[in-house]
Amino acid sequence: MNTNKLISEIKRKRSFLCIGLDVDKSKIPTHLLGFSSPIFEFNKAIIQATQHLCVAYKPNIAFYEAYGEEGWEALSLTIDYLNTDYPEIFTIADAKRGDIGNTSHMYAKAFFEDLGFDSVTAAPYMGKDSIEPFLKFEDKHTILLALTSNSGAHDFQTLNIDAKPLYQSVIETSRTWVNAKNLMYVVGATKAEYFKSIRKIVPDSFLLVPGVGAQGGSLEEVCKFGLTSDIGLLVNSSRGIIYASNGLDFAEQAAQNAKKLQQKMNAILSHI
Amino acid sequence: MNTNKLISEIKRKRSFLCIGLDVDKSKIPTHLLGFSSPIFEFNKAIIQATQHLCVAYKPNIAFYEAYGEEGWEALSLTIDYLNTDYPEIFTIADAKRGDIGNTSHMYAKAFFEDLGFDSVTAAPYMGKDSIEPFLKFEDKHTILLALTSNSGAHDFQTLNIDAKPLYQSVIETSRTWVNAKNLMYVVGATKAEYFKSIRKIVPDSFLLVPGVGAQGGSLEEVCKFGLTSDIGLLVNSSRGIIYASNGLDFAEQAAQNAKKLQQKMNAILSHI
Repeated sequence: MNTNKLISEIKRKRSFLCIGLDVDKSKIPTHLLGFSSPIFEFNKAIIQATQHLCVAYKPNIAFYEAYGEEGWEALSLTIDYLNTDYPEIFTIADAKRGDIGNTSHMYAKAFFEDLGFDSVTAAPYMGKDSIEPFLKFEDKHTILLALTSNSGAHDFQTLNIDAKPLYQSVIETSRTWVNAKNLMYVVGATKAEYFKSIRKIVPDSFLLVPGVGAQGGSLEEVCKFGLTSDIGLLVNSSRGIIYASNGLDFAEQAAQNAKKLQQKMNAILSHI
Repeated sequence: MNTNKLISEIKRKRSFLCIGLDVDKSKIPTHLLGFSSPIFEFNKAIIQATQHLCVAYKPNIAFYEAYGEEGWEALSLTIDYLNTDYPEIFTIADAKRGDIGNTSHMYAKAFFEDLGFDSVTAAPYMGKDSIEPFLKFEDKHTILLALTSNSGAHDFQTLNIDAKPLYQSVIETSRTWVNAKNLMYVVGATKAEYFKSIRKIVPDSFLLVPGVGAQGGSLEEVCKFGLTSDIGLLVNSSRGIIYASNGLDFAEQAAQNAKKLQQKMNAILSHI
């Protein structure tokens, strides 16, 4: 999917919500456990109930790998279902990969070609030749970790390199890579004041923002500094939506929580 | 496996060789393609032919993910085969993972508990709480990327933070994390002169060294600065060994190339 399509979907749905499908089998309603793929059944119900309220879904790959072949089957069924029934939805493989060139190419093939995701998250530590293999794919996006929402972000990301924090150096350097137009960035909502300096470096790039909700970030603060005329934000919520209830009404309750965020987004979009 | 056992295996086999099982189906001998799991058949033959010459095997997970469920099955069969038939071999899941705490915990469970690897490689960008979930597992090891062997290593890893390169800061900071004793480090062979400064920070830690062979690193240089009285090195070779031939004699040729490295290691070990 190209970004113009994503922007038009955001405007049509009045939402820049991304829902994280971080599915832990021990937390899903017990009545689903009899299905041949309980995780996929859970995802399908969540997607059916919330797809009109969000523009993106983001399965975190760790949660699928933890179940081995069964997990990969559930991931594969989920992305096939999205691509077939809701092709207008932007899909993100939250994988945080990054390796030497020929290996990154294998990851890119796995997520973009074989599974058919629109985008994948990647870690910048190994530099240019670990990311460029992802950037080669037309209309596919690589979402580079810049400033994450966890406490460990301060261990290295905010340390200064030549009087400039590492996360800024990562963003600036990445703009020089081949096909940098296919880059987006992960910027945690827990540090809304940082959005100002980031927007000076990448005024137009899409930012994927975790940390609203369970991790304490404020949607209003993020939008104040991060929103562009073409929106430029995807705000993610995972646990706060998908685990709203573990009863028979789990999908309905998830939709109610998604609706609350979508309504806030609708109000914010009215002001720009 | 604990490090004492690893050290005693190195001394017994006169080898600190790790063989990378980065298996690309397009490069394996065509006579294997009729098997139900060609990748596993390839691995099994390579392992049988080389297990007396090395102390560790390192499948790079990207190569397995690229084949989806089939790849996970091959990975699972390979690690089961190693754990059952060669429990004295140290196993490394080269995954380069790293995510927020609860997600890193899922990855740790997947690689240490479900698959049963002895160790996993991890990326440091997200800091302490992205790595500590891996360190909790007794007799399991987390091999942190410090200085990698690719050209992109110079984009961020060698930049100075407070007059000290980032990779040194990563190693120093990681020593303060809970269960730091379970850490090892990835240090590329292409920069042997860096081993000197790294040994000042971690005089005893095991270093996993890629980049010998195909990537141009010198075994002698690495050992000159990296070797400790308890060896402290695992030197990896992947393509140079497993793709020595793609004929019927592929395993035998792989063993010949492994033998050449093992003989060099034997000579080096005679001097300490």
